[in-house]
Amino acid sequence: MRKMTPLERLIPYNEALKRINKSIVPIERVETVSIENALERVLAENIVANMSVPPFDRAAMDGYAVRAKDTEGASSTKPRTLKLVQTLHAGESSSKTLGSGECIQVATGSPIPKCADAVVIVEVTQRSDGSVSILEPVGTGENISLRGEDIEKGRVILKAGEQLFPAKIGVLAALGKKEVRVYAKPLVAIVPTGTEIREIGSLLEEGQVYDVNSYTLTAVISRNGAVAARVKAVPDDLEELGKAIKKLADCDIIVFSGGSSVGERDLLGEVIRRLGEVVFHGIEIKPGKPTLFALVNQKPVFGMPGYPTSCLNNAYLLLLPAIRQMARLPPKTERTVRVRLAKKLISSSDRMQFLTVRVGKGQAYPVFKHSGAITSMAGADGYIILPTNVTVMKKGQEVTVILFD
Amino acid sequence: MRKMTPLERLIPYNEALKRINKSIVPIERVETVSIENALERVLAENIVANMSVPPFDRAAMDGYAVRAKDTEGASSTKPRTLKLVQTLHAGESSSKTLGSGECIQVATGSPIPKCADAVVIVEVTQRSDGSVSILEPVGTGENISLRGEDIEKGRVILKAGEQLFPAKIGVLAALGKKEVRVYAKPLVAIVPTGTEIREIGSLLEEGQVYDVNSYTLTAVISRNGAVAARVKAVPDDLEELGKAIKKLADCDIIVFSGGSSVGERDLLGEVIRRLGEVVFHGIEIKPGKPTLFALVNQKPVFGMPGYPTSCLNNAYLLLLPAIRQMARLPPKTERTVRVRLAKKLISSSDRMQFLTVRVGKGQAYPVFKHSGAITSMAGADGYIILPTNVTVMKKGQEVTVILFD
Repeated sequence: MRKMTPLERLIPYNEALKRINKSIVPIERVETVSIENALERVLAENIVANMSVPPFDRAAMDGYAVRAKDTEGASSTKPRTLKLVQTLHAGESSSKTLGSGECIQVATGSPIPKCADAVVIVEVTQRSDGSVSILEPVGTGENISLRGEDIEKGRVILKAGEQLFPAKIGVLAALGKKEVRVYAKPLVAIVPTGTEIREIGSLLEEGQVYDVNSYTLTAVISRNGAVAARVKAVPDDLEELGKAIKKLADCDIIVFSGGSSVGERDLLGEVIRRLGEVVFHGIEIKPGKPTLFALVNQKPVFGMPGYPTSCLNNAYLLLLPAIRQMARLPPKTERTVRVRLAKKLISSSDRMQFLTVRVGKGQAYPVFKHSGAITSMAGADGYIILPTNVTVMKKGQEVTVILFD
Repeated sequence: MRKMTPLERLIPYNEALKRINKSIVPIERVETVSIENALERVLAENIVANMSVPPFDRAAMDGYAVRAKDTEGASSTKPRTLKLVQTLHAGESSSKTLGSGECIQVATGSPIPKCADAVVIVEVTQRSDGSVSILEPVGTGENISLRGEDIEKGRVILKAGEQLFPAKIGVLAALGKKEVRVYAKPLVAIVPTGTEIREIGSLLEEGQVYDVNSYTLTAVISRNGAVAARVKAVPDDLEELGKAIKKLADCDIIVFSGGSSVGERDLLGEVIRRLGEVVFHGIEIKPGKPTLFALVNQKPVFGMPGYPTSCLNNAYLLLLPAIRQMARLPPKTERTVRVRLAKKLISSSDRMQFLTVRVGKGQAYPVFKHSGAITSMAGADGYIILPTNVTVMKKGQEVTVILFD
């Protein structure tokens, strides 16, 4: 019988992040999606404008297309009166050429008639039968959007690597694009380990618990530009774990939950040493110490602690940055609030600690129970970090809460 | 022929928000979804724990289940030696009753054997054949998670109205719940108006442009807890607009784009005055002034400006809060950065102005072209607000940029 061996060498959190960062290769697979489905995706092609936007010189305001010269010196006491020769509605264009002393009524978006060079806005005009009094002069080009003013034909208007937020989807629509090439979302396999783990919906027997981590991990993965593939629980067994890794060769990342602790049957490290390289096993953080990160045929493999809070905490701290990097998304910007501690905190570890808190009335209330308690996170709004060198934080002390999100 | 009439009375932005807020009724429809599909949804039922979590007293650490009394006075120089009577793997339970001087090897998560009252962690033990030396004493209950310690059976553990973030999905999984009742997502109909608007994919004729707003609005709507239903463009025609409103009786919100300006054919206000009540028409903001908000049979109807930037800007400023309120989501918390203006800004309006900027190297670079230019937003990282009473902002001045997101 093998002996249980404690984790050998813990590394600091930042070192863990750095090693993950160095190991992740941004995804190269691309796919074509309709622009309705392209929101938040990452462009895999430069978008070259195949047309000008607007496609023609157009009225930027409702009013009257004029020759600017005809309005010189106009005022409310001395209006210039122009002959109204046509009325254009949006979507209509004029075949007329505007003569001197004439005007054509235009709506915002109307193509500018030939020989007109400005639009007088409706607010500074007076209309009578067949003619329009202009109360203010306009300059040449005023209230006209020139063809290509927004997007110039032939220009690279969006670049590969940009994430498609609403306005960029709008650019694609303005160019009439129906589809776009984007990077594929990384496929992340989630493998719970341990014979005590049961699928939700089944009945529990003595000693069994429901699979929590597959669901929390799926949630974090799908919110950060990747796709989760839940896999049936695998027994803590050398052969079975090895088989699982080989079977998941098509996935971009494999995440095991459970099986990375130091118990006799925590065999993941051993399996991986046979198949690839353990990059680290054990981090100086609480909760989440026994986390493993490895590369098997260049494929990142995470061994997350089995405990729901440890697992989810480390999903936020370690898996999330890895997924975003692979998905070519920028690092998540944290939302934080500065509030006062509602209660004194005493460090329970010489590791860097992540303590969940609820935020209310400008105060942070600790809610952490222990690493096994999912309610430690479900009842929390975020967490505060207790650095390694801090042993006490006073009641009333200002702290930064990093909000879950 | 009717005359073109300017907007009569502009209201301040905050007043517009207040009136919208007062008009929105949070959605009452509920639906049942699997917990895999419940992420970010809003609970429509209280979740009462139907079981305890953990469902049994269990080992919180890998080690040995003992009677705490047996470890009294243990030290590395004077270890207590206990007889190892069984080895439990996670998922296994013991039928044995632990006798005095005995221990049972347990893995994290193992049910605690009868008469054991503590777990000694593996790190402070030494193993030899058939026995274990304990190098440190443990107190009663140490390293044991008690049944119900995380979730107590019968307790309300999640409440109706809570949004389901990853940890709360974890709570549902821990209770073995497969499905959950959530509030339906509001259904938001998007109706482009104007005969010049063409579907992407079709060919443009002189005077026509592609439908941009349906796509940008869909994006904003789907990122804020609602579902967008794109509808074919409707001509600017009293009867057609009225028919569209009646046909969309099943939607929770109707958003028109275009048709809310002051041009001769901007008939939306007129149609709505016949069918319901215009809550406001015209806001003291730039871009986005000619926005209309109305109630038709209690159903909120937005009339957005047709210009892509005005429309999208107002989708963020006015539609987004309305949708979130109806979807029972908390107001969006803004991400902001403080940077310096890279260029002097001169106010071009006496309205409150939203000026798009790109952020780089600690500076904000204005990118706003005009309300018609979608690139004014697509090239921006966020916007700064120029209040009504500010006419100039100096180069180098510190400003708050509200980031698009």
